[in-house]
Amino acid sequence: MATLEDIGVAAAFNLLSALVFFLAFAILRLQPFNDRVYFSKWYLKGLRTSPSRSGAFVGRFVNLDFRSYLRFLSWMPEALKMPELELIDHAGLDSAVYLRIYLIGLKIFIPITLLAWAVLVPVNYTNNTLKSQLKNVTSSDIDMLSISNIPLGSDRLWTHIAVAYAFTFWTCYVLLKEYEAVANMRLHFLQSEKRRPDQFTVLVQNVPPDPDESVSESVEHFFLVNHPDTYLTHQVVCNANKLAKLVKTREKKQNWLDYYQLKYSRNNAQRPIMKTGFLGLCGEKVDAIDHHISEIEKLSKEITEERERVLKDPKAIMPAAFVSFKSRWGAAVCAQTQQSRNPTLWLTEWAPEPRDVYWPNLPIPYVSLAIRRLIMAVAFFFLTFFFMIPIASVQALASIEGLEKVAPFLRPIIKGFIKSVIQGILPGLVLKLFLIFLPTILMIMSKFEGFISLSSLERRSATRYYLFNFVNVFLTSVVAGSAMDQLNAFINQSTNEIPRTIGVAVPLRATFFITYIMVDGWAGVAGEILMLKPLIIYHLKNFFLVKTEKDREEAMDPGSLGFNTGEPQIQLYFLLGLVYAAVTPALLPFIVIFFGLAYVVFRHQIINVYNQEYESAAAFWPDVHGRIIIALLISQVALIGLLSAKHAAQSAPFLIALIVLTIWFYTFCKARYEPAFVRYPLQEAMMKDTLERAREPNFNLKPYLQNAYVHPVFKEEDEEDEDEFNYKLETESVLVPTKRQSRRNTPVPSKMSGASSPSLSEVAPKHSEPTN
Amino acid sequence: MATLEDIGVAAAFNLLSALVFFLAFAILRLQPFNDRVYFSKWYLKGLRTSPSRSGAFVGRFVNLDFRSYLRFLSWMPEALKMPELELIDHAGLDSAVYLRIYLIGLKIFIPITLLAWAVLVPVNYTNNTLKSQLKNVTSSDIDMLSISNIPLGSDRLWTHIAVAYAFTFWTCYVLLKEYEAVANMRLHFLQSEKRRPDQFTVLVQNVPPDPDESVSESVEHFFLVNHPDTYLTHQVVCNANKLAKLVKTREKKQNWLDYYQLKYSRNNAQRPIMKTGFLGLCGEKVDAIDHHISEIEKLSKEITEERERVLKDPKAIMPAAFVSFKSRWGAAVCAQTQQSRNPTLWLTEWAPEPRDVYWPNLPIPYVSLAIRRLIMAVAFFFLTFFFMIPIASVQALASIEGLEKVAPFLRPIIKGFIKSVIQGILPGLVLKLFLIFLPTILMIMSKFEGFISLSSLERRSATRYYLFNFVNVFLTSVVAGSAMDQLNAFINQSTNEIPRTIGVAVPLRATFFITYIMVDGWAGVAGEILMLKPLIIYHLKNFFLVKTEKDREEAMDPGSLGFNTGEPQIQLYFLLGLVYAAVTPALLPFIVIFFGLAYVVFRHQIINVYNQEYESAAAFWPDVHGRIIIALLISQVALIGLLSAKHAAQSAPFLIALIVLTIWFYTFCKARYEPAFVRYPLQEAMMKDTLERAREPNFNLKPYLQNAYVHPVFKEEDEEDEDEFNYKLETESVLVPTKRQSRRNTPVPSKMSGASSPSLSEVAPKHSEPTN
Repeated sequence: MATLEDIGVAAAFNLLSALVFFLAFAILRLQPFNDRVYFSKWYLKGLRTSPSRSGAFVGRFVNLDFRSYLRFLSWMPEALKMPELELIDHAGLDSAVYLRIYLIGLKIFIPITLLAWAVLVPVNYTNNTLKSQLKNVTSSDIDMLSISNIPLGSDRLWTHIAVAYAFTFWTCYVLLKEYEAVANMRLHFLQSEKRRPDQFTVLVQNVPPDPDESVSESVEHFFLVNHPDTYLTHQVVCNANKLAKLVKTREKKQNWLDYYQLKYSRNNAQRPIMKTGFLGLCGEKVDAIDHHISEIEKLSKEITEERERVLKDPKAIMPAAFVSFKSRWGAAVCAQTQQSRNPTLWLTEWAPEPRDVYWPNLPIPYVSLAIRRLIMAVAFFFLTFFFMIPIASVQALASIEGLEKVAPFLRPIIKGFIKSVIQGILPGLVLKLFLIFLPTILMIMSKFEGFISLSSLERRSATRYYLFNFVNVFLTSVVAGSAMDQLNAFINQSTNEIPRTIGVAVPLRATFFITYIMVDGWAGVAGEILMLKPLIIYHLKNFFLVKTEKDREEAMDPGSLGFNTGEPQIQLYFLLGLVYAAVTPALLPFIVIFFGLAYVVFRHQIINVYNQEYESAAAFWPDVHGRIIIALLISQVALIGLLSAKHAAQSAPFLIALIVLTIWFYTFCKARYEPAFVRYPLQEAMMKDTLERAREPNFNLKPYLQNAYVHPVFKEEDEEDEDEFNYKLETESVLVPTKRQSRRNTPVPSKMSGASSPSLSEVAPKHSEPTN
Repeated sequence: MATLEDIGVAAAFNLLSALVFFLAFAILRLQPFNDRVYFSKWYLKGLRTSPSRSGAFVGRFVNLDFRSYLRFLSWMPEALKMPELELIDHAGLDSAVYLRIYLIGLKIFIPITLLAWAVLVPVNYTNNTLKSQLKNVTSSDIDMLSISNIPLGSDRLWTHIAVAYAFTFWTCYVLLKEYEAVANMRLHFLQSEKRRPDQFTVLVQNVPPDPDESVSESVEHFFLVNHPDTYLTHQVVCNANKLAKLVKTREKKQNWLDYYQLKYSRNNAQRPIMKTGFLGLCGEKVDAIDHHISEIEKLSKEITEERERVLKDPKAIMPAAFVSFKSRWGAAVCAQTQQSRNPTLWLTEWAPEPRDVYWPNLPIPYVSLAIRRLIMAVAFFFLTFFFMIPIASVQALASIEGLEKVAPFLRPIIKGFIKSVIQGILPGLVLKLFLIFLPTILMIMSKFEGFISLSSLERRSATRYYLFNFVNVFLTSVVAGSAMDQLNAFINQSTNEIPRTIGVAVPLRATFFITYIMVDGWAGVAGEILMLKPLIIYHLKNFFLVKTEKDREEAMDPGSLGFNTGEPQIQLYFLLGLVYAAVTPALLPFIVIFFGLAYVVFRHQIINVYNQEYESAAAFWPDVHGRIIIALLISQVALIGLLSAKHAAQSAPFLIALIVLTIWFYTFCKARYEPAFVRYPLQEAMMKDTLERAREPNFNLKPYLQNAYVHPVFKEEDEEDEDEFNYKLETESVLVPTKRQSRRNTPVPSKMSGASSPSLSEVAPKHSEPTN
């Protein structure tokens, strides 16, 4: 077990490395040639332009103003300055609410830390249990402050129960307030937002096949009959997966072509040569530029053919459609009700934002979905419990004893300072390395399960990642041994033995988790701000590929926040904080520092760097809330186990009552707030409809919604046309509202609907205009 | 352990008692003076009149036609004759579907029995394990046919696993088909049914208080705004609980008055005298008739006052209302959507049938509901696990050894035949006696929880009763000892030890459950047809109270089927059958006989006797389905335990896979069929609306719905007026449709709405007529 000195060294080391990261960041971000990496959000918003266009040549790449280096932490207050409303405007509600998770961490743990240090630390420290045993057990100084220092069966343990009650009530109170606040933010956001296609649109899946009608006709007839007053238009879903793949391949080839052309322009003497075989390592030698040009031409032809096939072939039309309504009320009604007798046909749900749709999954039929979910549940079970075999073996190696056993010749080296460093860092690092590749696997699993929006894919991956972390990081670190061993032990242990096993082990592993928090939390967060990977990729791309301003914009794409990896990691800190709150209060300050640091860093990143791909209006909050409550429950179970091992089993009923109350709180919150994240109240919809009708009585919704949900492959090429058209439309409807009358009987200009997809618009509007 | 001889004696005894019951029934039902008890359903339907009106005096009471006694089992084929569609017409869908539960029992267990006897019995019987141990263990002949006879670790156990797969697949197949059939029956029923107020009506609860508006105004404004095209009218809910109580008291007094008057008319010499104190045992002596007349007068006055108070006092108006719509589509939309931003306000759900509403629970607010549910969950936990202490002690007494210990002087008597009888009957009987009072307690608990319809009250009680039965009948009989001991053992046992404990005990308790099936099942069902309690009560009432024909009708009220007690008991047989199917096939024929007998008897009872209070259109089916699947899962877990005790633990993964598949099947069915029982598809609603509009374009819904959901206390007195009015309205609208025009602007005659409750109709219709 690590001593206080080890922890001090590790803390110093990690703080130092964090400081180094911050310094490096301060230096790098001030260099103009990195500007696009560290302020990409502003570039994407068009609010910042390249500083390299003006000034001296050297000044373009290196910042020569030395004063700016002195204020190297100045980004921190800057990051905190932007008020929340502006932040929502700037980065979207998802990001703003995501930051609130860190804020909750602070809100929960600062008072808990204060209370724990004020009450528990004195109660724990004024015992002599450990001192008297000091000779045979190697316990660290930190354990002096923990519950381990309290003698068996002591009445002092009642303090811990009382404090556990206080912690639970405080956590629940914060959670309740926060759930309420986020639900209000979400409703307010949906309410105050501008008109968005997804407010009027419902995704219909599993349209039953009809021998006499095409999918498009069938959809139109169904909704004209069953939603006669509100149905407006619809777009059927095409299976354009192959087309999308072809387009992507062409883009890649185009990139290579650009690269070779740039190379040739720099060195005119020699035309670039390449090999056609595997990875350019074998095969015939050809002229690279000519080869790529001919390849791209071939692909373009294929794309045109495929595009025509998709638009004409009825087999490419999927039994799914985006159905748009004349009002939000109509869409809300359709999304929340069952349409058909058979509840697996005509499945309706709110359409995700157009950006949020995960197109490849739209065509999956219902029965297949049920089977896919079963397969993935089983696969995830095996992944969780058998993935650990390699981790555990490496972890065993990474302990000092393990190292000494495997490589006895290292013994003279591993001493003193180095020993502390290795013991402080290695176990956490090994774990971390293993976890890097996991999110990708989990995301593939979620995709296989058939979710139809990116946000739900990320939410599902996050849930799985959390479970994985819980079993493979928390449980296996607490009760040493692989997850498989855990599983075996838990099956063979009695029900009241399991909490005891966990409870007893929890205080023993406090030092490990403290180092884990420092390595993974502190240093990880500080590393995050450096953006090392995007920085390198950007400069590589910039050097090899970028020719135009548009290329540069694509090169600097910072990606989005990554809810599926970020949130489960934060949850691990909630879990650690809550579990150790009543057991080893010494761990709490580390948690608080983590949340504080992470809050500042991610606020900066969200303001300056990340660019959300989609906006789900904080749909992930129920998951976040639920997981913090799970952490609370686990902490209570562990405390029961610990107390029963401390011969204070008579106190168990009090903690069981606490568990029952916590579960009840969860069900209460679920009933009270979750609907705000799943359904859209009719009152809100009606209010917004009425308001809008009063404001813009002549707005023509149909052209606005007509092509909102066209597959992005079709959209890209029409984008410019469309923008132009939309602009024209808007100005038209504002300036010359009477003109609309004349268009009522002549169909909308066909270049939008007709040219891009005849099948999408072949169902001509047979009903009245949407102005009512 | 009982020998085969014991079981033979018990079976003979129980068959004999069943035969005696049937004979008694045959004799009693042929007597004209019992006619109203055994054919009450027909009387209530007005299809049968008292046979006592004609014929000789003796013939009125005793059937003298001896030929009819010879065909004493003739009711059986008669009961089976009525086709299902006619049965639905005659007794409602609830009853018809209830019968299908027995039918499922036959469908599941007849093939399982055949397969088990064809495969398992030979496999089990051709071993010598038990014979070789016969000297030290007292095992019965039945065990020779069970899995107990197979040696440890034998390869023959694979047969049992294969058969368990076959049983599971067959059961799931039957369940799937049946779920589909019932869902279709339900939709067909809802579709083909006549117009009913609950099709157009939604119950709104938790109307938020408004300082400026009354509840009624607030409701009207809200729905006029948010459902402008479909809102028709509404009725607020009054808290008439006190009024209902007063009316009930008056009825009781009236009954006593009738009794005394009848007594006086028979014996004119002496006026009846009664005491005013507790139960008529103490207090002042008064003239009974005068006393009751004055009491009734006083009550009538109070009732009038209270009625006026309820109608005028705004405090008596509850924040709930029945909101009616112009179309089924509108009601379906409102019932399935969230209305308000705050999901605990303006809660909407389908209104239960007017007969089905449980009025006293309508005024309970949302937060209180959440707390009530918590309290009841905790209370039920304690009820289940601590109720057993007395039962277990009595059961211990009821065993032969227990009896001999307590009363050694009985030893000479308890021998041979008597011993068999006691051992065969007593343990089951004791359990049965204890369970008689339970349903009432559970019903009170459900009422406290705040369900608003009788059907949901019964469903919740049934769920609780099932859980109770599972723990206290099944578990405690399998693993001897009280539920509390069970709980303690299960907490202290390891997770894989629990199935083993159950699994090992299951084959040992086969004989006990066989006797239980005979006593509780066979004899219970045969006793059911006798209707002894209603028969006695009817004759008592007939003798003491009945004066008019209406009194007689009230006296013969047979009650309804009692889903809350009946269904959980059937489920116990499903559980026993499935658990023992692969273990002790000898038990299966007893189960099959039970289901066959019960099906015939209950079909007869439903056709001839019971009168459903309400119609929930088989809303209980998902519960039934779920519980059979739970039984299946328990049987699989028990089998795993048994096999691991048989040293065949390597086969466990196969059964775990079976469990996973069964759970998946459950979730699949839930997603596929449950919506049909919870929601009302818009397509259906629209279809029905359109059809009706085409058939009766001029039907005026508003007066039809105006008073459909008035509290029964108000309704009773207006009943005759209303019938008359309804009749008038119908004939009017058919014969002289143009007359309606003139009524459009003059309000509907006020005698219905105005006279009965001004507050219910004070919101005059401000919008257009509902004809579109």
